[in-house]
Amino acid sequence: MRRKEFSVEEQNEIDAFLNEMSYGYLATEGADGWPHLTPLNYAYWNGNIYFHGSRAGSKMKEIAQSDKVSFAVSKEYAIIPSYYSDPRQACPATAFFKSVHIRGIAEPVEDLDEKAGALSSMMEKLQPEGGYAPITAEDPEYRGELRGVSVVRITVSELTAKFKFGQNMSEERRAHIAESLAERGRPDDAETAELMRRFCPHHQ
Amino acid sequence: MRRKEFSVEEQNEIDAFLNEMSYGYLATEGADGWPHLTPLNYAYWNGNIYFHGSRAGSKMKEIAQSDKVSFAVSKEYAIIPSYYSDPRQACPATAFFKSVHIRGIAEPVEDLDEKAGALSSMMEKLQPEGGYAPITAEDPEYRGELRGVSVVRITVSELTAKFKFGQNMSEERRAHIAESLAERGRPDDAETAELMRRFCPHHQ
Repeated sequence: MRRKEFSVEEQNEIDAFLNEMSYGYLATEGADGWPHLTPLNYAYWNGNIYFHGSRAGSKMKEIAQSDKVSFAVSKEYAIIPSYYSDPRQACPATAFFKSVHIRGIAEPVEDLDEKAGALSSMMEKLQPEGGYAPITAEDPEYRGELRGVSVVRITVSELTAKFKFGQNMSEERRAHIAESLAERGRPDDAETAELMRRFCPHHQ
Repeated sequence: MRRKEFSVEEQNEIDAFLNEMSYGYLATEGADGWPHLTPLNYAYWNGNIYFHGSRAGSKMKEIAQSDKVSFAVSKEYAIIPSYYSDPRQACPATAFFKSVHIRGIAEPVEDLDEKAGALSSMMEKLQPEGGYAPITAEDPEYRGELRGVSVVRITVSELTAKFKFGQNMSEERRAHIAESLAERGRPDDAETAELMRRFCPHHQ
């Protein structure tokens, strides 16, 4: 799914997922010819991805050399055993997951208000219970910290999403797997069965 | 930490982590100048990373163009709230995690026995309860499937690991955080407190 193809409902699902997850992976072009991966806590704020780090880190150098980055967030909901579909062959074993992939342009943020807003958004997600003074550029106890920390904004050029919950399966197989998951009862299994129903192509 | 610097104990921790986790991220060089990220189930077998996919997929094309790939596996154990360290400032908020980053050379596997071994290793991890016929190249019901599926081996050129559990903190702060996690009692909190003790630099 490309962004322009999303229905409002799909865009809402994607936004909710990006606002719920705590970390994703940044891929940058490494100086040595290998792409470089970094797991990062992030905020999804005003349609952009924000993360922070130290000014001296290798990420910052790589972004200065090539600002074309990818950022991905995913959650594996359930491993689907082969025997839900076939008593003998291992081949039908699969996993159900949500995954969002962003290509964008990474730029250091210099504006202190934008830094404060992005970091506030990250704190609201990761520490919703509060327990800290609001982060603002006017607060003398934050101002120096905001100047010192590097905050990077990824402006989204392209966003694709894959929510894989058996949409391509026959109705019979999907129903059997949903029942089997409800019986198995691992932590995310009930939610996975619910997502199978929600994303079922026959219900859209 | 680079591979050559690992103690036997550290290498065992890393191997156990790679054998426990179900999926990681592959980063390839995209044809359009952006690095490309794909979450993938994988096997860590004979010191290599293996994954499978369809022959026609974009991953396979990208690997054919540039075989220098990165692969990363991580798990976030706990978000550490700022107020465990400071009653006012949000800045000390952090996350404890394990993360392994591999740079390697990706090559399609043609040998059917190696394909069968890699897929068997993946099944043993993801479906340890069994419930399928052993995967072998001799089995006529698997032979065609093994020919059809693409399996890729990433030969490890460099492996770095970061297990962040407050090793850089003062003993007092670390003790307070471990106690606070034990009190909070979210699913991974008790294990996180245990890992803080295990990776404490004073205990090594």
